[in-house]
Amino acid sequence: MTNKRKIINDPVYGFLTIDDDILYDVISHPYFQRQRQIKQLGFTYMVYPGATHSRFSHMLGALNLMCRAVDVLRNKGVEISDEESRGVRLAILLHDIGHGPFSHTSERVLSKVHHETLTSLFMERLNKEFGGQLDTAIAIFNNTYPRHFLHQLVSSQLDMDRLDYLARDSFFTGVHEGVIGTERIINMLNVSNDTLVIDEKGIYSVEKFIISRRLMYWQVYLHKTVIACDMLFLNTLKRARALLEQGEKLEGYAPLLYFLSHNTDESDYHNKPELLELFASIDDNDLISSIKSWTQNSDFIISTLATQLVNRQLGAIRVSSDDYDKATVDEYRSKTAELYHISESDADYFVNTGRLENHAYSFDDSEIKVLYKSGECKGISESSDQLDRPFLEKTVTKYYLNYPKALK
Amino acid sequence: MTNKRKIINDPVYGFLTIDDDILYDVISHPYFQRQRQIKQLGFTYMVYPGATHSRFSHMLGALNLMCRAVDVLRNKGVEISDEESRGVRLAILLHDIGHGPFSHTSERVLSKVHHETLTSLFMERLNKEFGGQLDTAIAIFNNTYPRHFLHQLVSSQLDMDRLDYLARDSFFTGVHEGVIGTERIINMLNVSNDTLVIDEKGIYSVEKFIISRRLMYWQVYLHKTVIACDMLFLNTLKRARALLEQGEKLEGYAPLLYFLSHNTDESDYHNKPELLELFASIDDNDLISSIKSWTQNSDFIISTLATQLVNRQLGAIRVSSDDYDKATVDEYRSKTAELYHISESDADYFVNTGRLENHAYSFDDSEIKVLYKSGECKGISESSDQLDRPFLEKTVTKYYLNYPKALK
Amino acid sequence: MTNKRKIINDPVYGFLTIDDDILYDVISHPYFQRQRQIKQLGFTYMVYPGATHSRFSHMLGALNLMCRAVDVLRNKGVEISDEESRGVRLAILLHDIGHGPFSHTSERVLSKVHHETLTSLFMERLNKEFGGQLDTAIAIFNNTYPRHFLHQLVSSQLDMDRLDYLARDSFFTGVHEGVIGTERIINMLNVSNDTLVIDEKGIYSVEKFIISRRLMYWQVYLHKTVIACDMLFLNTLKRARALLEQGEKLEGYAPLLYFLSHNTDESDYHNKPELLELFASIDDNDLISSIKSWTQNSDFIISTLATQLVNRQLGAIRVSSDDYDKATVDEYRSKTAELYHISESDADYFVNTGRLENHAYSFDDSEIKVLYKSGECKGISESSDQLDRPFLEKTVTKYYLNYPKALK
Amino acid sequence: MTNKRKIINDPVYGFLTIDDDILYDVISHPYFQRQRQIKQLGFTYMVYPGATHSRFSHMLGALNLMCRAVDVLRNKGVEISDEESRGVRLAILLHDIGHGPFSHTSERVLSKVHHETLTSLFMERLNKEFGGQLDTAIAIFNNTYPRHFLHQLVSSQLDMDRLDYLARDSFFTGVHEGVIGTERIINMLNVSNDTLVIDEKGIYSVEKFIISRRLMYWQVYLHKTVIACDMLFLNTLKRARALLEQGEKLEGYAPLLYFLSHNTDESDYHNKPELLELFASIDDNDLISSIKSWTQNSDFIISTLATQLVNRQLGAIRVSSDDYDKATVDEYRSKTAELYHISESDADYFVNTGRLENHAYSFDDSEIKVLYKSGECKGISESSDQLDRPFLEKTVTKYYLNYPKALK
Repeated sequence: MTNKRKIINDPVYGFLTIDDDILYDVISHPYFQRQRQIKQLGFTYMVYPGATHSRFSHMLGALNLMCRAVDVLRNKGVEISDEESRGVRLAILLHDIGHGPFSHTSERVLSKVHHETLTSLFMERLNKEFGGQLDTAIAIFNNTYPRHFLHQLVSSQLDMDRLDYLARDSFFTGVHEGVIGTERIINMLNVSNDTLVIDEKGIYSVEKFIISRRLMYWQVYLHKTVIACDMLFLNTLKRARALLEQGEKLEGYAPLLYFLSHNTDESDYHNKPELLELFASIDDNDLISSIKSWTQNSDFIISTLATQLVNRQLGAIRVSSDDYDKATVDEYRSKTAELYHISESDADYFVNTGRLENHAYSFDDSEIKVLYKSGECKGISESSDQLDRPFLEKTVTKYYLNYPKALK
Repeated sequence: MTNKRKIINDPVYGFLTIDDDILYDVISHPYFQRQRQIKQLGFTYMVYPGATHSRFSHMLGALNLMCRAVDVLRNKGVEISDEESRGVRLAILLHDIGHGPFSHTSERVLSKVHHETLTSLFMERLNKEFGGQLDTAIAIFNNTYPRHFLHQLVSSQLDMDRLDYLARDSFFTGVHEGVIGTERIINMLNVSNDTLVIDEKGIYSVEKFIISRRLMYWQVYLHKTVIACDMLFLNTLKRARALLEQGEKLEGYAPLLYFLSHNTDESDYHNKPELLELFASIDDNDLISSIKSWTQNSDFIISTLATQLVNRQLGAIRVSSDDYDKATVDEYRSKTAELYHISESDADYFVNTGRLENHAYSFDDSEIKVLYKSGECKGISESSDQLDRPFLEKTVTKYYLNYPKALK
Repeated sequence: MTNKRKIINDPVYGFLTIDDDILYDVISHPYFQRQRQIKQLGFTYMVYPGATHSRFSHMLGALNLMCRAVDVLRNKGVEISDEESRGVRLAILLHDIGHGPFSHTSERVLSKVHHETLTSLFMERLNKEFGGQLDTAIAIFNNTYPRHFLHQLVSSQLDMDRLDYLARDSFFTGVHEGVIGTERIINMLNVSNDTLVIDEKGIYSVEKFIISRRLMYWQVYLHKTVIACDMLFLNTLKRARALLEQGEKLEGYAPLLYFLSHNTDESDYHNKPELLELFASIDDNDLISSIKSWTQNSDFIISTLATQLVNRQLGAIRVSSDDYDKATVDEYRSKTAELYHISESDADYFVNTGRLENHAYSFDDSEIKVLYKSGECKGISESSDQLDRPFLEKTVTKYYLNYPKALK
Repeated sequence: MTNKRKIINDPVYGFLTIDDDILYDVISHPYFQRQRQIKQLGFTYMVYPGATHSRFSHMLGALNLMCRAVDVLRNKGVEISDEESRGVRLAILLHDIGHGPFSHTSERVLSKVHHETLTSLFMERLNKEFGGQLDTAIAIFNNTYPRHFLHQLVSSQLDMDRLDYLARDSFFTGVHEGVIGTERIINMLNVSNDTLVIDEKGIYSVEKFIISRRLMYWQVYLHKTVIACDMLFLNTLKRARALLEQGEKLEGYAPLLYFLSHNTDESDYHNKPELLELFASIDDNDLISSIKSWTQNSDFIISTLATQLVNRQLGAIRVSSDDYDKATVDEYRSKTAELYHISESDADYFVNTGRLENHAYSFDDSEIKVLYKSGECKGISESSDQLDRPFLEKTVTKYYLNYPKALK
């Protein structure tokens, strides 16, 4: 028994077991520990009060599923070396390490760098610290490792990331529609021609998984009240950035203010190695705390936005199958300008429109494959009696319009 | 149907229903909304990653159980007027409104005022805002309302507060030892001679409840790693207060710094009404965010403490049935002073000892009473075959010693 | 409190409460108690060992959901009188009272009378015993009661029967694909123009319900191994009937042998009132016990069939999207005749083919209706972004072929 | 992958995996399949309608826990050979193979042979059929295998039998008091000096396990209504035996009547090898079916008893801490004789008294041992702060008195 063997209670699966020193060391690293302070679902807890779970717990959960998947595949005769097993487990453990505060929500505002780029930057940094022990993990993550199915376990339409987040988000929100038979799906995994496939008997579970994911999109991930909250949050940050650009002074957590004042891009991270450290020091707490201090700011717009967010006085939001026409939006903008005694262009901080879209499934080369007893492999869209191509291809698009509640 | 009827998803019970305007309005109030930002179990999420649930969700959960309890009692013929029903529901809804950041942990450091005093202050303030609609709730909460059993539903050995937190904390930590038959206990509630009692058939469930509570104490509430974390947190705040007292300037969230610089007591709240507002503006986020900014402070002690907390590099902790003698503690203090090149008195920021105690049950006048079919009432200690007086009276006391991990 | 108030533990919902004397009396009646001895899912326990739950528990579970539904509707302002509430609860409680042993499976063999006819006969008999107290229940059940939505709660595409059996069968089989948000659906029920509808917010839950039901069909209700078992069982009874017709003597439970010897139809029940009592005396136990005694019979066919069933040595079964052609079936029949040294016509006891079909949803006048905040009502097929008409209309048909395992 | 690898859905643990040919073959054997027809908890379903689960599912469940326990121990460095692993799994799989209908209840009436003796007889018979492949299993079961801890996994105060039945019975009855952290306990298992021990961190879980077991005894296993039902059942069988001894003819399942007419003992099984086969052909169904046929018998006593059982018209039952004195019992016997116009000695078929006892824990040499990090081992009674010796030693004894309900 390794000295660092650890069992962690997890309400979703019961237990998470860490039984490899390098896993333990990576989890203990400050870059990983910071994910305890980042919510998996951003502002979703404003609608589903239970959804305060952290990205940290998701990353451990995905690791846990990966351990089981490796066991299942080995039991079915798929050869996976110890180095590959370690690599694929590190790859899933770190797949979200680049996420910043409020995960997907603030990404576009804090900097121009996508979280996947940041993930790569963090992985490289950690690999250096750990003397190259992450080489295989990085190759698997970047899909440059020769055995393709290992990458698919980390990133594909049936990867351990999705399996965990559906189960976990369903558990913490209390939305039963997302309950899937995680254990059954993992038991049905197999490999054929270096491709991750599902055994014939697992078809129903995969059908359920695809449908549950689709329902979770509309019921949780694209919930209109969460959108209203995200808008308020983004508008607040946008105003902060504008004030800083105008040379105004804002209170708040220094590293956050740095990113709001600088429009960093990927090259900056390469030129200033300390920038990654600075990014790593920001989490959900700093945003909420700084925004609270802005409620006292003399600028009417930022203090109004901040107060509304802190007190959960969200804007009205409407959702429709049709795009909102310019006239409607303009009308709301005018009324808002009037309501708050601000300019029409500043009214953009309170009136927003946009598109919601849910691709539950894609037909590119990574379509989920079913392995029949005969040895034959077919895509799920051909295998399923329930989910034919038109159903799977269907993309539901909706449009939202967000405006002050005072306007009826 | 009232306009404000609301159904909220809750992972523990499925649904929470708000069906009374005044309940809806109180929940929407900023004083209540701030509890979304306060964790029910403080730093417990450092050990049980799922335990990020908010006090907000507990307060709604307790309200939900109260609604059921009122229904059960009315069905058994206990007369409860609509005003009493509203009062007892408001009382449970607000029973924790006075909690500050990290709930119990920071209480002793931020000010000298106990959270129950703050709860009363918040209730009075809200009552004024809502034009006296909380009169009955406050009377029930303070036990000045003539019908005693209503207070017992809010605060007693079998109140809706305990029933909810045991179920909820067990759910989010994933510790099965805390699972209790909440629904069954509530179904077994009754009233006899204005006293809340349990029907004879519910004895086993109450036994399970008392035992589960005891086990949760040792497995969760007094978990030694959580204690280590609390110590680090309290020492950090103590150092911040010391630095501020010495006139040093600290970064951080202004209202927090105010409370760390002023030793407020109850009279201050009466003299400066705006102080309550200031207190209400502080939550968990401000503490984490401010502490992170202190990692860059030039003071060795505060930057060390803050860095250890942020990176979860906790001190070693030992727990024993016997108190640690002065010699042992002094030795650790000397070694710590040497390790960090600091004075022996400053070593107190890293070496702590204290007592843990668990009173699972008390024999004062609020002993849980069992109502027999014969109409007779007896205390649970006389009714239970399992839990006799010596078992129930038993108080387990343990002592902890906390010191830098580098010292073995 | 009524003298007969009763709380029954139920693993699916926690508790079932009986709080009305007439409900209590009906449940205590021997006609109702016999349902304890009839499995809800027939031979499904041969595939899913947990699925031994009784029809009795389903009937109580459906009653429990009905109680909640009545509460929800009344809270939304739908007026339901006490007599109607009692009637609709009695109607759901008794909706399956006519089921015989192994529920749907043996129905076609024991007699020519459909279980719904038997349900009516039992209801009338009970109504006589209880002095007309079931009048309203019977009217609701037969849809002759003026308020249509009450009948829909008992029998429609979203009735309490389906809601309970999906939840219950999913629970006891351990098939997560069937998990539905029962509580949420019930909370979303409403009535508009005397029609049972679902509030707009419940669309996702209904989508999930329809899809789960479809998946449960293929994964449980039409599971091919269960079909193989049903075939063996039906063939055994068919042989028993043939032997009795030939004047052979069979051991076994007398009332069962009576029904196997007489081809009873509905008129017989009217002519001989004691026949219903005789039918009521047969349950699952008698079939298994009698079949076991037939393992010792001198007739090769019945002893072979009985032995295979008792020892769970099931036939091979193949399932295909295309019907099996006569040539294939004839070939299996010939081989079977050869294998067992029996005539080709007797080979029919071992070789069977048939059709499996799953109508998850129908578009007749009882389509599930959605009530929008605007007051408008639309069918779910128009309301759902996921479940459009082609998807809902789709009927999956499969064909099975069953033959001795010795033939490969 | 073996050809016979099988995954079975189980509602308690999700999945049961059978991955060894010999396990598969033993489970497929008729001696094992018959356990599908025997309820784990006898007549408990008369009180807890969900408790219809079979001994078959318990035996598979215990196997499942054993597989996990072997994995955990091997991961901690305990060497277990493949032959030992197979042996200990077969031993737990077969530990209850000797149970007859209604498990413990009918044991004393059908024959004089204890079910453990029958288990040994079945094991020997199977071992012959499987060419000695059960040698190790039998040695482990009989505790003649040199490595003692393997026997303890099968039979001790913390064996896989108890762990499964507590979890399973709690699940199917819906009694939350029995919920234990099965997974955690298994994760905490270890071996020290050839003794099964629990790691220090598992103390709380073991405390919970012991307490839950105690509560399950009173709430389920010794539930007074179940006792009333058992009494009725045993009295019915006793009367059947008496009638058969008097030469009366009874209808019913032939092998059952054989055992009721013959007072078989262990030597009979050795003398007539076919007797075991005959015993194996009896299950729960035959008892219920035969008893139903006795409702029509001309003997007043047996027809009354049978009718009461079939219709669940149970006797009254009182439970007390003090034994019922002879005078009280005699009085009830007289009144019963009068009520039914039968002799006082025949009144014994309706009036019974007896003792209920619950030894939750014993202090013999198999006390549960705790392994400390220091390597030291101590008994749980010394290790636990909650469960000291007086608590553990405590045996609660109660007395019941059963009589016709008509006598009040």
